[in-house]
Amino acid sequence: MHMQSTLFGMLAALALALNQVVAAHEVSGEEFKPFAEKHVILQLSDQANEAVVLDTANNLIKHYGGPDLIDIEIVTFGKGVRLMYAGSEHAVRIASLVENGVRFYVCENTLDTLERTDGERPKINPAALMVQAGVAHIIDRVDNGYILIRP
Amino acid sequence: MHMQSTLFGMLAALALALNQVVAAHEVSGEEFKPFAEKHVILQLSDQANEAVVLDTANNLIKHYGGPDLIDIEIVTFGKGVRLMYAGSEHAVRIASLVENGVRFYVCENTLDTLERTDGERPKINPAALMVQAGVAHIIDRVDNGYILIRP
Amino acid sequence: MHMQSTLFGMLAALALALNQVVAAHEVSGEEFKPFAEKHVILQLSDQANEAVVLDTANNLIKHYGGPDLIDIEIVTFGKGVRLMYAGSEHAVRIASLVENGVRFYVCENTLDTLERTDGERPKINPAALMVQAGVAHIIDRVDNGYILIRP
Repeated sequence: MHMQSTLFGMLAALALALNQVVAAHEVSGEEFKPFAEKHVILQLSDQANEAVVLDTANNLIKHYGGPDLIDIEIVTFGKGVRLMYAGSEHAVRIASLVENGVRFYVCENTLDTLERTDGERPKINPAALMVQAGVAHIIDRVDNGYILIRP
Repeated sequence: MHMQSTLFGMLAALALALNQVVAAHEVSGEEFKPFAEKHVILQLSDQANEAVVLDTANNLIKHYGGPDLIDIEIVTFGKGVRLMYAGSEHAVRIASLVENGVRFYVCENTLDTLERTDGERPKINPAALMVQAGVAHIIDRVDNGYILIRP
Repeated sequence: MHMQSTLFGMLAALALALNQVVAAHEVSGEEFKPFAEKHVILQLSDQANEAVVLDTANNLIKHYGGPDLIDIEIVTFGKGVRLMYAGSEHAVRIASLVENGVRFYVCENTLDTLERTDGERPKINPAALMVQAGVAHIIDRVDNGYILIRP
């Protein structure tokens, strides 16, 4: 009997450890897209890539068979935040992607720097979600299983 | 006896769960390079980096001790597909890397866009492997354990 | 009794396998920053991003609440190595980040190429750590759980 309770103890410890391993690799994106096969971050940190990032998001939604099957975040920081200025030439495409569940993030650290340098804070598309540090947001997402692509 | 069969059931469930965790982190690249220590994707999506990507592939092959010990894919999309145009100035280096087992992929979505814009589809190096969506190919590979580098 | 020793054998095998899975996902950075929540590599491979990479390192240290809570390596190769030239305009910021435990790496393959092309090897900031192949260093780190960001 003593041996069996030892066995149970070992099993419980194993189950706990296993559970932690599994948990460490679960993706938190279920809250956003419960049926998504993949969870992806597209990084935009330079202005030259604005159209490429939007094209990539569109292509991925087509490739995976619809907006519910792929979970996409576009995280902008540095010069990439210009995509999310109110009045950006890409506003219509952004709105269409938002309707398809794509989430756009803007780095407040970048806006703080711009405000210090230029004297005023740029006006941001109200569809944007704000995070204090764009790179820290990316790190947290990757830690939760998101795949980071910088197109 | 009842307690022991419960134990066996728990063990079987644990073994199954563990197996799934291990499987989720196995790299599919064994089909290409069964003895490779590392499986790497080099992303090429802008023209400025053509030579850097080829240099990186060469350096990695040297660093890991030969073409069998490192599995490399070069995935081109956007402006990166120009590397794989028939008649690229890099054709000789591409051929040499292909002989060493490096696989070059071209994004057909990019070619479709170029065909719409320019009126004709660019001719591609016959050594290239075609994928419909370069970024989706990258996502699948990373999901299978490949490490993505954009040099 | 026979059944119980079989059980012990299975448990031992499971524990060993589980241990390997856990080990495969442990981060080696504990040697550098035992209390760090996150282990991050910032890649610098073009000159335009010098200031952005230094800003990002500073922002991350602030975001995570101090230099002990985030483990950062800045890996330079290609045109990125210029940040680490002796006499770089960023020398003071580099010194301040080094004091906060940020590690700066320089790719010797890049320096070898520069020496062949330019006739002399650039002088490097003595705070830099040297690695033969910057990209191979990144691959090893990512394999050990570091998150790679190219700002």
